[in-house]
Amino acid sequence: MKILLGSQSPRRKKLLEQLDIQFKTVTIECEENYPNAINPRDVAAYLSKKKSISYSDLNKDELLITADTVVIIQNEILNKPKDYNEAKEMLEKLSDKTHEVYTGVTLRSLAKQSTFSVQTYVELNELSDKDINYYISNFHPFDKAGSYGIQDWIGLSHISSIKGCYYNVMGLPTSMLYKRLKNILGRDV
Amino acid sequence: MKILLGSQSPRRKKLLEQLDIQFKTVTIECEENYPNAINPRDVAAYLSKKKSISYSDLNKDELLITADTVVIIQNEILNKPKDYNEAKEMLEKLSDKTHEVYTGVTLRSLAKQSTFSVQTYVELNELSDKDINYYISNFHPFDKAGSYGIQDWIGLSHISSIKGCYYNVMGLPTSMLYKRLKNILGRDV
Repeated sequence: MKILLGSQSPRRKKLLEQLDIQFKTVTIECEENYPNAINPRDVAAYLSKKKSISYSDLNKDELLITADTVVIIQNEILNKPKDYNEAKEMLEKLSDKTHEVYTGVTLRSLAKQSTFSVQTYVELNELSDKDINYYISNFHPFDKAGSYGIQDWIGLSHISSIKGCYYNVMGLPTSMLYKRLKNILGRDV
Repeated sequence: MKILLGSQSPRRKKLLEQLDIQFKTVTIECEENYPNAINPRDVAAYLSKKKSISYSDLNKDELLITADTVVIIQNEILNKPKDYNEAKEMLEKLSDKTHEVYTGVTLRSLAKQSTFSVQTYVELNELSDKDINYYISNFHPFDKAGSYGIQDWIGLSHISSIKGCYYNVMGLPTSMLYKRLKNILGRDV
């Protein structure tokens, strides 16, 4: 089976490379919306599935990986920020609190399909206005759910603790993905 | 105050750089042994202090950072492996279990000295002989306590969960260090 990654996220590409997995990336057109009634904790899995079925060029020797990452604080989903002010608001909400990160993953071939989701708790220390301004101005986190990257300055300096998979917060639950790929492919990956 | 890092670890250098801290590295000669009677959980703090006081060239405008990282499984300390066989033995001990990682840090100027230690729990999935051989042969983890790097292939593919600071496992508890440096320097770092 050839592995396809249906994501343009440079972080996901890098994580899959570091897993020593051979793959190529494909582009998927998909509107990332979801029903209002859905539980926020199910959104990442839902969107990973939606992205997967939006791809119609799958061949029978191909396995497609799609993923979606969602940040949740007090039952509210934080998406990618539109601009500086939205990023600032999100970081103010996350400051001095614990939030949840979910990455949903769908693996699909023409014969099989499976979706799973992994949760990580992230504890962020208090962020001052200066910290927030410094981070947004220098790191431009506009492509990141919740307006931050755990691997950036803000993650090193202000995340005191996590509970769960670190790479899940970056965008792929690598150890769970590795296990599932081995099962599906019936061989070491 | 000028900041000195008393460590030749490329991972510690990179983490301090990612914290956007200006520093230079210095070489410290220090035998990394400790009293037999010491609690394994105190060894990292003890060695960070020992490294710090081994450096005798400190000027009054300098702050020295030293650190030591220790892996503990069932009350046994795993040091850096001498060779392939020792690395293999260590990874077999860690397989399918949760272990603890402690990084001790000492901050010292001529006027002040403080030592602290941070604990992270790490849950490793089962490693097959093939996994262990693949990892040691390709990643040569002979400079790493416990024979693994969380940021390497083995960490992505087999660490299912951690509890605590991720960067602590890499060699520096960055968020705690950042907080302490701010306090000691009385300014943003």
